[in-house]
Amino acid sequence: MDIAFEKGGGLVPAIIQDHRTGDVLMLGFMNAPALAETQRTGEVVFFSRSRNKLWKKGETSGHLLKVKELRVDCDADALLLRVEPLGPGVCHEGYRSCFFRKIGADGAASVAETRTFEPEKVYRQERKP
Amino acid sequence: MDIAFEKGGGLVPAIIQDHRTGDVLMLGFMNAPALAETQRTGEVVFFSRSRNKLWKKGETSGHLLKVKELRVDCDADALLLRVEPLGPGVCHEGYRSCFFRKIGADGAASVAETRTFEPEKVYRQERKP
Repeated sequence: MDIAFEKGGGLVPAIIQDHRTGDVLMLGFMNAPALAETQRTGEVVFFSRSRNKLWKKGETSGHLLKVKELRVDCDADALLLRVEPLGPGVCHEGYRSCFFRKIGADGAASVAETRTFEPEKVYRQERKP
Repeated sequence: MDIAFEKGGGLVPAIIQDHRTGDVLMLGFMNAPALAETQRTGEVVFFSRSRNKLWKKGETSGHLLKVKELRVDCDADALLLRVEPLGPGVCHEGYRSCFFRKIGADGAASVAETRTFEPEKVYRQERKP
């Protein structure tokens, strides 16, 4: 199936969902080589917009994302990857999910999850770009 | 909390998740006015990239998305909206979720869900842009 990479200037958003809990863990972007590498290795590879290169999620921390199922939406311009996350969390701030803050009715953000690891002990170089 | 709209040229991806089942239903984009309108009304409003205007999801079909919780990711450049979907589905092709196709190891897509409604009976003008 052809993915509509051209719609987003060569990139499509890729939603990462825990295949067991259903929790949405993060969102990254993929270009065609990132998707191909994800499919080849069975582990999530994004394209980093800030570093302008492929970025294997967990390459430093060891918190790789093993792909269990790859889905595409009706217009083929967004991807959903159901994964088994290795390690205690995907967020560089030490949470299981990057979506650990909620925004209330007043517009203020508050932390809605508890930390699952200490990022300073896990990361040396890797940061979510 | 300030959302990093400028990172994506004024738009951030917004993931729509069923708050009861955890299923990811669709992905749209929001600009600042779309998010403000979503917050004001409690119903999901996207920015349509193809129509270049605000787009209230369900405005034609009546299948509105009632916002139950709004989350933001660590870098404030992606949104997660946990919603109560009104109606049998969000996809203009007649499925509960736009992510109704999976891509197999051979790269071929196959339908992985069953239709929940007949789109030709529901839609007159609205199409996912």
